[in-house]
Amino acid sequence: MKIALAQINPIIGDIEGNSKKIIEIYHKAEKDDVDLVMFPELAVCGYPPLDLIEKYEFRKAVADVNKKLSRETSSVGLLFGTITERYESVGTGIYNSAMLCYDGRIQFIQNKMLLPNYDVFDEVRYFEPAKDVFLHEFRGEQLAISVCEDIWNDDDYWKHRRYHRDPVRELIGNGATVLLNISASPYAHNRRQERYDMLSTLTRKDRLPLAYVCTVGAQTDLIFDGGSMCFDRRGELCLLGKTYEEDYFIFDTEAKYEPVRSIEKSFEQEVISSLTLGVKDYARKTGFTKAIIGLSGGIDSALVTYIAVEALGAENVHVIMMPSQYSSEGSVKDAVKLAEKLGITYDILPINEVFEKYLDVFKPVFKDKPPDVTEENLQARIRGNYLMAYSNKFSYLLLTTGNKSEMAVGYATLYGDMSGAIAVIGDVYKTQVYKLARYINREEEIIPWEIIHKAPSAELRPGQKDEDSLPPYDFLDQILEMYLEEYKEIEEIVDRLGNREMVKKVLETIDNSEFKRKQAAPVLRVSKKAFGYGRRFPIVQKWRRP
Amino acid sequence: MKIALAQINPIIGDIEGNSKKIIEIYHKAEKDDVDLVMFPELAVCGYPPLDLIEKYEFRKAVADVNKKLSRETSSVGLLFGTITERYESVGTGIYNSAMLCYDGRIQFIQNKMLLPNYDVFDEVRYFEPAKDVFLHEFRGEQLAISVCEDIWNDDDYWKHRRYHRDPVRELIGNGATVLLNISASPYAHNRRQERYDMLSTLTRKDRLPLAYVCTVGAQTDLIFDGGSMCFDRRGELCLLGKTYEEDYFIFDTEAKYEPVRSIEKSFEQEVISSLTLGVKDYARKTGFTKAIIGLSGGIDSALVTYIAVEALGAENVHVIMMPSQYSSEGSVKDAVKLAEKLGITYDILPINEVFEKYLDVFKPVFKDKPPDVTEENLQARIRGNYLMAYSNKFSYLLLTTGNKSEMAVGYATLYGDMSGAIAVIGDVYKTQVYKLARYINREEEIIPWEIIHKAPSAELRPGQKDEDSLPPYDFLDQILEMYLEEYKEIEEIVDRLGNREMVKKVLETIDNSEFKRKQAAPVLRVSKKAFGYGRRFPIVQKWRRP
Repeated sequence: MKIALAQINPIIGDIEGNSKKIIEIYHKAEKDDVDLVMFPELAVCGYPPLDLIEKYEFRKAVADVNKKLSRETSSVGLLFGTITERYESVGTGIYNSAMLCYDGRIQFIQNKMLLPNYDVFDEVRYFEPAKDVFLHEFRGEQLAISVCEDIWNDDDYWKHRRYHRDPVRELIGNGATVLLNISASPYAHNRRQERYDMLSTLTRKDRLPLAYVCTVGAQTDLIFDGGSMCFDRRGELCLLGKTYEEDYFIFDTEAKYEPVRSIEKSFEQEVISSLTLGVKDYARKTGFTKAIIGLSGGIDSALVTYIAVEALGAENVHVIMMPSQYSSEGSVKDAVKLAEKLGITYDILPINEVFEKYLDVFKPVFKDKPPDVTEENLQARIRGNYLMAYSNKFSYLLLTTGNKSEMAVGYATLYGDMSGAIAVIGDVYKTQVYKLARYINREEEIIPWEIIHKAPSAELRPGQKDEDSLPPYDFLDQILEMYLEEYKEIEEIVDRLGNREMVKKVLETIDNSEFKRKQAAPVLRVSKKAFGYGRRFPIVQKWRRP
Repeated sequence: MKIALAQINPIIGDIEGNSKKIIEIYHKAEKDDVDLVMFPELAVCGYPPLDLIEKYEFRKAVADVNKKLSRETSSVGLLFGTITERYESVGTGIYNSAMLCYDGRIQFIQNKMLLPNYDVFDEVRYFEPAKDVFLHEFRGEQLAISVCEDIWNDDDYWKHRRYHRDPVRELIGNGATVLLNISASPYAHNRRQERYDMLSTLTRKDRLPLAYVCTVGAQTDLIFDGGSMCFDRRGELCLLGKTYEEDYFIFDTEAKYEPVRSIEKSFEQEVISSLTLGVKDYARKTGFTKAIIGLSGGIDSALVTYIAVEALGAENVHVIMMPSQYSSEGSVKDAVKLAEKLGITYDILPINEVFEKYLDVFKPVFKDKPPDVTEENLQARIRGNYLMAYSNKFSYLLLTTGNKSEMAVGYATLYGDMSGAIAVIGDVYKTQVYKLARYINREEEIIPWEIIHKAPSAELRPGQKDEDSLPPYDFLDQILEMYLEEYKEIEEIVDRLGNREMVKKVLETIDNSEFKRKQAAPVLRVSKKAFGYGRRFPIVQKWRRP
């Protein structure tokens, strides 16, 4: 059987545009003389459409397109992810479906049975689970069609399974000859390797060919990395789709392939590619062409600027340097050097005079109160105002530059440096920021080494250094990773790192910074647990570990 | 059977404090010679604890307290909501449970079967559903114990049911003699009446007494209004708990009561009570005693100030008037009049000079670009900075003053008037703001009539009126209510209101303002569908209705 995999980048809600893309690729595949062409999960409406699904007019538009697509089909199979709905006496009757069309008709629908409802996934909110799974006979094969999570419950792969049923196992038991899975699986570090491990466990065991088509593209904070996979009967990965871009390729279940051995690139390369796609798609899908960044002379904003240039081109990136009386001399100089290296335009707009004016206004109110975090925040907010003013006046997308370490401990100013549409490196720890910067400089100096080598500082008071307020980043980031991503608690962290006092304080600071993160820009997700939609803590709470 | 209902206000995560409260009330109830005392859903950890549940140390602390509470019991039953956990080969094994203790031991656990996973509820994310329900014999009665949603699936009440099983029906079928439900049901307009209708349908039919204990108190954005209910064998409501405060009362299933007829107060009174509790508990539970508000002379900030005074006392509320060159003469005067009426302190801090300073800085950048929304936003942001500076310096809680109509259409400035910890009237439409203000003035002028009668204006450019940019609020709010709360789409809205052009534009503006609401403060919820946690739309999307 010859199967075309169409790894597309849909826009959420753009039912017309997405279906047009589907039909164009389908007709191309017809000419390639394939048996079937397959598109990712919810390809018609994009994944995840969230509460758009609750709009009946939205579902009606999807249903209309389902029919329209089916009518366009010849004898070549068209398999795609979509929403279907039917009246049921209990529950919503709304399903996350794989729809197979040919000969001008909808021939077969397999609804998703396993609905992920953890981390960034809320599918139980929207969908009913399939009650059963069925094979579909097509061109002499028994097709086992499943949707994403349906294939993620293999008994031999998981030490502890999440779901009671295993729909793919059931289909194999019923006599499947070809496995097809349509998917939308967001990137996180090592995730592609995990997909490979899980799918190869399955295919090795059952000696059935598998075509697994993934969506690609960024949808606000979620980055889908593509990398669709085909496995032969020996469980060898024989085809791997492009990453971070659309792709189209044909899998012949009877052909012989060289096994693909390289699944995932280096951490640095994958993260840079992810974030670049994140910025590019946010801009493209919201209609922005240009971006603005506050360039402080520090490493975070330098990295974000580099990514913005990769995503949008140097001609579309503008930066503003906003020195204060506490800025080191090097700050503006280093920032200018980077801007010149990258070939982007910049403005230098000091904040002193505006800052002084605020202080004048508040003199009768603050009286003799000594300067404190108020004045530091105020400077950050003036900078935020500058950037937003530029963004508003010239329609530039403002990118925020805070890293995950800062966001974790709330070392950031609401309405100040947290201002912006998307937090580009909000899921990248400070120590990882250094790694990425060094990687970028691996062949030539792009980010000036001065920026990489200087001690991190917010430069909001004389001689300030991050490490006056925070533990050293090497230490902090280890705590953060264990706590946020590995779900370790204080005992295990202290066992590994020592310094109970400091660990406890860090954990409390994380827990107490929820109010800031509530109002943060969406964070481009590159780890298993990013701040934002997939991490939901109460703002008002008094959890104190014993 | 004599049942004590303990309608408590837990703090989320404060396992120690909540359990101390439970044990104190239990011992008090022992002296009252009751058979059983019941506490609300998740009383031990507060509802909703969200991702705290995913922390094993948190669950361990809950498990420890479960045991500790059980050991404190005499022969009097102690029924409370908590988390339980057990090893299971598939799934998490974590349950939302009702735990019954007496004679020093945990005697019976009934897990919740129906897990709400819509609007603000995410219970499938955390809990496994009970597989079965069981009666428990206690002091000669067959107790049917259920948790919140378990009692919300009655076949005769709902035209269309959400769940296949009806655990309370099953328990009744098995021979229940007393129904007990422990609950956490957040306020929305008419919700108490709905609870009454649903529960009385059930009890009338089955002629069984029901004790239904609710949680009370605000948890960030969710306001639990209390109003626990007891129904006698005739299905008459015989006891109704206090609203918006803790309560404790005894229900004798054999006694005769006068039926309670008045379930819910006026819309205005309920909403004011809800919002007052929302502000009070946000402050109390986060350790703030004082609040600050930007008082513009308009009706929104006037209402918020009134609520803050109700919640925290006049001595704990400070306001700042921040006139610009575009402020009308009346603005400051009206604001001062209100402050004096309410007996609160105020500062008048004009923004002109700071604004001019910004314009100076941007002159070489903006060059000859005409003033536009940039300059308007900048003024709003200077005000936001003023308020945050005061909040930072003196540790005052900043309350935002935007209403639901503005939030819907994005008529608000990010990092400007949207700055603050909690959006007090973010779920109250502008026309409802007027209703509340008139209600507050029903006996005497508290909010100056000038404030109520003036045309709404953001006063960010000469002669600006809201209705230059927005449809008249009477019309706008009808669109919003149909769209946001009744899930109507354009055809139905136009059928009722006409003016397709304007309706279409409003709906598009709502859909396109998601990026602002993402970064908004949590909104105190008083309607069936508030902005915030319970309403989840993609930020980047291109849904366009046909």
